[in-house]
Amino acid sequence: MQWKLSPDRCFSSDPAQRRLARTLYERVKRLPLFCPHGHVPPQMLADPTARFGTPVELFILPDHYVLRMLVSQGVSLEQLGIAPRDGGWYETDHRVIWQRFAEHFHLFRATPTGLWLATTLIELFGVEERLTAENAQRIYDYLQHRLTEPDFTPRALFRRFQIELLATTDTATDSLAAHRDLHVEGFGNVRPTFRPDALLALDAPDWRTQIDRLSTLSGVEVHDYHSFITAIEQRRAAFKALGALATDHGVETPYTAPLSNSEAETIFARAMRGTATTRDTARFTAHMLIEFARMSCEDGLVMQLHAGSLRNHHTALLTRFGPDKGADIPVATEWTRNLRPLLNAYGSDPRFRLILFTLDESSYSRELAPLAGYYSAVRLGPPWWFFDSVQGMRRYFDLVIETAGFYNTAGFNDDTRAFCSIPARHDVWRRVSCDWLARQVVEGLLTEDEASELAVELAIGLARRAYQWQMGNGT
Amino acid sequence: MQWKLSPDRCFSSDPAQRRLARTLYERVKRLPLFCPHGHVPPQMLADPTARFGTPVELFILPDHYVLRMLVSQGVSLEQLGIAPRDGGWYETDHRVIWQRFAEHFHLFRATPTGLWLATTLIELFGVEERLTAENAQRIYDYLQHRLTEPDFTPRALFRRFQIELLATTDTATDSLAAHRDLHVEGFGNVRPTFRPDALLALDAPDWRTQIDRLSTLSGVEVHDYHSFITAIEQRRAAFKALGALATDHGVETPYTAPLSNSEAETIFARAMRGTATTRDTARFTAHMLIEFARMSCEDGLVMQLHAGSLRNHHTALLTRFGPDKGADIPVATEWTRNLRPLLNAYGSDPRFRLILFTLDESSYSRELAPLAGYYSAVRLGPPWWFFDSVQGMRRYFDLVIETAGFYNTAGFNDDTRAFCSIPARHDVWRRVSCDWLARQVVEGLLTEDEASELAVELAIGLARRAYQWQMGNGT
Amino acid sequence: MQWKLSPDRCFSSDPAQRRLARTLYERVKRLPLFCPHGHVPPQMLADPTARFGTPVELFILPDHYVLRMLVSQGVSLEQLGIAPRDGGWYETDHRVIWQRFAEHFHLFRATPTGLWLATTLIELFGVEERLTAENAQRIYDYLQHRLTEPDFTPRALFRRFQIELLATTDTATDSLAAHRDLHVEGFGNVRPTFRPDALLALDAPDWRTQIDRLSTLSGVEVHDYHSFITAIEQRRAAFKALGALATDHGVETPYTAPLSNSEAETIFARAMRGTATTRDTARFTAHMLIEFARMSCEDGLVMQLHAGSLRNHHTALLTRFGPDKGADIPVATEWTRNLRPLLNAYGSDPRFRLILFTLDESSYSRELAPLAGYYSAVRLGPPWWFFDSVQGMRRYFDLVIETAGFYNTAGFNDDTRAFCSIPARHDVWRRVSCDWLARQVVEGLLTEDEASELAVELAIGLARRAYQWQMGNGT
Repeated sequence: MQWKLSPDRCFSSDPAQRRLARTLYERVKRLPLFCPHGHVPPQMLADPTARFGTPVELFILPDHYVLRMLVSQGVSLEQLGIAPRDGGWYETDHRVIWQRFAEHFHLFRATPTGLWLATTLIELFGVEERLTAENAQRIYDYLQHRLTEPDFTPRALFRRFQIELLATTDTATDSLAAHRDLHVEGFGNVRPTFRPDALLALDAPDWRTQIDRLSTLSGVEVHDYHSFITAIEQRRAAFKALGALATDHGVETPYTAPLSNSEAETIFARAMRGTATTRDTARFTAHMLIEFARMSCEDGLVMQLHAGSLRNHHTALLTRFGPDKGADIPVATEWTRNLRPLLNAYGSDPRFRLILFTLDESSYSRELAPLAGYYSAVRLGPPWWFFDSVQGMRRYFDLVIETAGFYNTAGFNDDTRAFCSIPARHDVWRRVSCDWLARQVVEGLLTEDEASELAVELAIGLARRAYQWQMGNGT
Repeated sequence: MQWKLSPDRCFSSDPAQRRLARTLYERVKRLPLFCPHGHVPPQMLADPTARFGTPVELFILPDHYVLRMLVSQGVSLEQLGIAPRDGGWYETDHRVIWQRFAEHFHLFRATPTGLWLATTLIELFGVEERLTAENAQRIYDYLQHRLTEPDFTPRALFRRFQIELLATTDTATDSLAAHRDLHVEGFGNVRPTFRPDALLALDAPDWRTQIDRLSTLSGVEVHDYHSFITAIEQRRAAFKALGALATDHGVETPYTAPLSNSEAETIFARAMRGTATTRDTARFTAHMLIEFARMSCEDGLVMQLHAGSLRNHHTALLTRFGPDKGADIPVATEWTRNLRPLLNAYGSDPRFRLILFTLDESSYSRELAPLAGYYSAVRLGPPWWFFDSVQGMRRYFDLVIETAGFYNTAGFNDDTRAFCSIPARHDVWRRVSCDWLARQVVEGLLTEDEASELAVELAIGLARRAYQWQMGNGT
Repeated sequence: MQWKLSPDRCFSSDPAQRRLARTLYERVKRLPLFCPHGHVPPQMLADPTARFGTPVELFILPDHYVLRMLVSQGVSLEQLGIAPRDGGWYETDHRVIWQRFAEHFHLFRATPTGLWLATTLIELFGVEERLTAENAQRIYDYLQHRLTEPDFTPRALFRRFQIELLATTDTATDSLAAHRDLHVEGFGNVRPTFRPDALLALDAPDWRTQIDRLSTLSGVEVHDYHSFITAIEQRRAAFKALGALATDHGVETPYTAPLSNSEAETIFARAMRGTATTRDTARFTAHMLIEFARMSCEDGLVMQLHAGSLRNHHTALLTRFGPDKGADIPVATEWTRNLRPLLNAYGSDPRFRLILFTLDESSYSRELAPLAGYYSAVRLGPPWWFFDSVQGMRRYFDLVIETAGFYNTAGFNDDTRAFCSIPARHDVWRRVSCDWLARQVVEGLLTEDEASELAVELAIGLARRAYQWQMGNGT
């Protein structure tokens, strides 16, 4: 039996709603892809000779969604080809890994990962059978072959995907070499994003290394809080010069609270002596978030705040394999009180834009939509991570729009390191948003002309506007 | 193109469900409106010559839902005609304000505010075109004209709306002059509600003024905790004499904990000396909520508790424009532990009735429905504020009814200061509740005769019963 | 009018979805019932002469769902036939109690209790009229009569229900006499479950009694922490010898944190001297949960953790009538940080299985699905208690599956002490799960063959697997 995607996937079965969802979707499905936040490595695009490698390198190794699901059923990371840091054994035969993946493919039923994989395999690669233990090697051969074709290089796909903007996420101490190459080549649709999290981890073992690197890259000798701020501002300018639109900040809690200059100096001095405490780090981070808001007012970079992930829940995994292997677990997140100092300072500054992302869905209607529905600086980011899913998006629309309206949301971003899944992810969003709009129409809550306009807004307009993208800004 | 409301708005598109929803709705749509909690100024009805003023005075200035949405997109309150307290400039040309409103009317798409505005403009005022920048002045003229007609005075509309009861919300130190006038005139459907929040704000700058006013109005010289209680009881009696059915209490957290008499005296004495702390206020409030429950047992006033709004999140806004301008933001709310002392004392007292309102939807199924499904005093109020919306109501029914049943809920109240939106708000509730009942029927979970009975209960019966309204109690 | 159940109850009204839901349901509706967690008294089955008693003894007295709903509307427990501990009056005329129940039967509209009662009365007992005040005595007579028939003994129904496994919940200090009888008789489908909660309540008045009983039953003289652990391990072995598959742990919070051996000894010694504090109890419980995980690794008993119920919220009720009368109220529950120590120790141990149950639905998508979707030991239990309901199950599927997948869930259990409601409860789950799968198919997110396979998994396969049930393991 041929493996096929339903042309009506993600649409309600109600005939009236589905009919209209189709019409709306027809209008937006071929619009360019706007990707203002993600984790694609820029090297992949900067190097014209880059290739994706084996199917395992493309679909399994870099995808924590895939890894975690197999791990949850007892497969070890070693068996999936992840090298332990202690030099121990791991599977290096990619055919064996692929076979294991195929044997567990049913785990992804009704999950977004399953939908992205199916869409990518079928629509992008032309696979015609659902992956099973039986056909695993045959499909491996087929994919391996396609990946050698000139149409399947990163750059070829970038063009085929019609990507209007791709923002990567880059640590503040990244050399930006790849972005510089892209810039020189005139590749204006790929942009860096300034992520300074590591600079705030005052009590982390490698913090001093980060600071030294910051000094070198910025040309500002960081020796105290004041020079630290200057160096950061210099780096932001360097990112901006290469087209950065935004900064990105990942925190366990969105706690903000200003320090006096002398408090900030004192804490920073402790960090420089290697004696900063966990509490110092928390207070310094809370202060720096407000500082970053100030800088955004001044340099115009949009500030993104991703809060609520407890990283590396499984300590043994972190020690053995490093971060981003699927063991980050969300925690309840308080926004109203935590963000108050920052928002009181800059929330209605017309120069400021703050985009909020949560992993605590209970905060959508309780805190985030009300905040976005009042502060002019605030936009609510799309459903993030686990909630970048069909039901997750529906809940998001149901919980957010009535309070915040559409125009205080930031559209979609795919947030992916799995480059080939980008079109699939945008497609799910566009389908679900069209279906949701269609429901509003058939229930008499929107008119068709409004829904039609909003479908385009949700597909691309709101994201462009949230990130202050000037059309024709790219290539 | 004519601006019209779908006759099937808020109904599912599923033909079987919609058919039944229509039938149920036909049964309830013309029932009288029962409004046991709201913020309509009684003066508007006490004064037979009162008028609504301009369209801006009617639709924009008093409506924090409208203000916040425009502010969230960068419009300033000054531009919307709100006078800053520092005497600075603000727009006084109502045509300019109306134009601005019209230009931003798309912000309200798929929001309850948008639905109420559309229903009011179309059904009450007969507007025939959707408001746009182009037709804004024409519609302004039209509305201005209608507002001068004798059919569009507050009293005329009160009659036309078929309001069986309208309870206002009045501070404990209100003179009740307007209510006295209404009472004398025999206007028995308008009732005051006793709201003593300001008396508990021990550390607020104007607390002493409130206490002096309490002394004057009650005729009880408040000099200690004991006389404070006596004066409050006197005021409750005065409210009751003018027909009050209920008290209302707004708190950030529903924390309750009794103080000993001497603790209460000590804290109160500190407050009288002007040295009460924030902690004193919190402990005193926690104690007084239990005292109010006791008083309710004794005088029969229904106790309403609205918890979970962090008022005046934006300090600069409060300073410049005062409260109720759209910057109140919800916070997570714990009910199970916080209400335990109060409920252990009075939760099964047959004389007591406590109606709970939350802005934290996660507490609906986790805490509130289980509490209402056990304690005989407790009823669960309708979805409040941001959740007085189509999706908000659906979530409420889905989350609450299975655990609490219908009969432990308190029906609907519109909670509005926008008098003209009252019918629109009840209409949304009636439509959504009929649609929800219809779903239960088509899914085999209720019979049609049960749904028919419950539609009337939800439209009016449950609210009448929750507030212990005696039919024929009014005019 | 005849009282009937819709053959399509719990199915969407959408024709395409309903058609498919029916097909899936046909496939699973007659599968055996697998009941790995519940509260049926084993004596009822161990004694071949046991009978259910009167309709009141069957339907009302043991069912806290029924009691609480009537209490919430002002009926007292005495009026419902519950004997107060102080020897005061209570209704002993079961006909009077039944009449009262019938008069309040409308309270259960659209509740799961209502659905279970209707299903049991109609399908099991053949009642043909909806229970009302008018027909109450007639139906009482009818039920009373049926309950004397040989087809309506516990054992007869056990066979008729096709129960593949029934696990009871038994305190660690239960003699297991009934289970021993069942075992001797070869009744292999009824199994005990080890529940040691009372052994951890160090500061409870009867803790010493429990410890003495533990010594007697285990044959290990418990005098310190070390012998306490040994005695517990002995009891687990005794439960296992009678076929126990699992342990069960009920806690207000799932806080876990290891104690050093000397800390554990010190706290235990304090408890033995009768001077343990609340804090001691909390720390000891947090430690013992990790110990129980270790024991599960060693003896293979599946560990069930039920967290988030604040037991006996209404103190007066507890004092007067004892526990389990409907006054347990859920609280917000934090899992990510609380379970971290336990999961870091044993979460990826292949010998370990931990099944989690929550009463805080906000934790489904935020914490539990992500945890179950990473740690190989973790499975997510079905919607529990208040959420064992049509909407509760739908929310569960919507919130959990996309992140955890189907295969990290533990299927269904009925968790009931109301033996006769077991088929009704499984039927609701099977209907709702088939309907949910059908929706995935009509929305193009699953194929029909996948849904068909998953329907069987949800009906019985996942539960068998989660509890490591070997087929043919029973009689």
